[in-house]
Amino acid sequence: MNIVLASTSTLFGGNYLEYLTEEIKILYNGIDEIVFIPFARPGGISHEEYTEKVHAFFAPLGIRVKGLHEFDDKKAAIESAQGFFTGGGNTFLLVKTLHNENLMQLLKENIERGKPYLGCSAGSNIAGVNMKTTNDMPIVYPSSFDCMGLVPFNINAHYLDPNPDLKHNGETRETRIKEFLTQNDVKVIGLREGNWIRNKDGKISVEGSEMTRVFEKNKAPYEVEPGTFL
Amino acid sequence: MNIVLASTSTLFGGNYLEYLTEEIKILYNGIDEIVFIPFARPGGISHEEYTEKVHAFFAPLGIRVKGLHEFDDKKAAIESAQGFFTGGGNTFLLVKTLHNENLMQLLKENIERGKPYLGCSAGSNIAGVNMKTTNDMPIVYPSSFDCMGLVPFNINAHYLDPNPDLKHNGETRETRIKEFLTQNDVKVIGLREGNWIRNKDGKISVEGSEMTRVFEKNKAPYEVEPGTFL
Repeated sequence: MNIVLASTSTLFGGNYLEYLTEEIKILYNGIDEIVFIPFARPGGISHEEYTEKVHAFFAPLGIRVKGLHEFDDKKAAIESAQGFFTGGGNTFLLVKTLHNENLMQLLKENIERGKPYLGCSAGSNIAGVNMKTTNDMPIVYPSSFDCMGLVPFNINAHYLDPNPDLKHNGETRETRIKEFLTQNDVKVIGLREGNWIRNKDGKISVEGSEMTRVFEKNKAPYEVEPGTFL
Repeated sequence: MNIVLASTSTLFGGNYLEYLTEEIKILYNGIDEIVFIPFARPGGISHEEYTEKVHAFFAPLGIRVKGLHEFDDKKAAIESAQGFFTGGGNTFLLVKTLHNENLMQLLKENIERGKPYLGCSAGSNIAGVNMKTTNDMPIVYPSSFDCMGLVPFNINAHYLDPNPDLKHNGETRETRIKEFLTQNDVKVIGLREGNWIRNKDGKISVEGSEMTRVFEKNKAPYEVEPGTFL
């Protein structure tokens, strides 16, 4: 496999996908067209607008972008694609759409055959075992929370440390993930913004600028450095 | 109906339910025992520990607390209860448990017959039309997102304003609720900590110390003062 799973598409103060440019060039080396999966629709943006935004980033790299929504036969589009990118937004909407159209398993199989895959945020969540560690609001009801399982753990994108100054009683991210572990025995990678997971031929490492927080059942959470194999 | 739906159980720096004491005395006036629904299990706390915490608050008010988990026949317990309290925690776990045990509709009917109901956080979410505006992590898969609909809108508990200082790219609460409104036509009450919904004989008002933010489809969000009828 040949996969990059990023916590976020955009760093604070940066432009869309900018900080991932070098990693993206390596990922899609030799590829001149990708299929973009726009179904997560961040902020309710249309499939067309979202695909245009992605096109604007990829055009200077010499990579054409086709939105998956443009194809009448989406299964054929996935089968004939050279590579994939799933953008961020609402994970529930993304997973519901992929399950409704019976695309989740087909996408998984194509990626497992070696086609490069980039995910950001919600697009990274769907590479995990299931979507039960998303931060997103359940605005629609998917037929299942199961995802592709391209990595043997779940991802918590945009992982955020507790803010000691916050006079607010909502649960911290760590508390939420610990609640997940009372009900599930699946490792969770708390991926801070600036970090990504790299899966190259089954060697899975965490990369980027920040430490990464790992949560496992019946174990204290721990931190690993960029470059650590998971 | 006779209902209080609070954003949070605990204010910053305060004790459990403390700020709601006067409202709780009015709500449960004439009642000496309530059934507590502990299924949301905040932080993974056991049903027993959670019920004990609630007991410690209610004992000085002369109100006995029975945990719903203590009853072999939970349906009979709901039918014979004088009043109810559902505590906060994980809304997915709470809704899954209520649906699995076929208790959601029965609880609704008992509250609609006039039995007093207190909800906090997740316990307030389940009084709305559905749970699609919870902030919680989807740690389990409920058989449905539908809730009791004791009020004709959804609640977003622990409503939080955007923090302009946060160098983080996760969606704001407002963005999430707007995404909900692209997929659903249900009013959402953004209930800040310190506020609660009061439904007394069908007159529904928002009470507490803070302004409340209201979201409707195809309308700019707006703020209402404490005491406003919804």
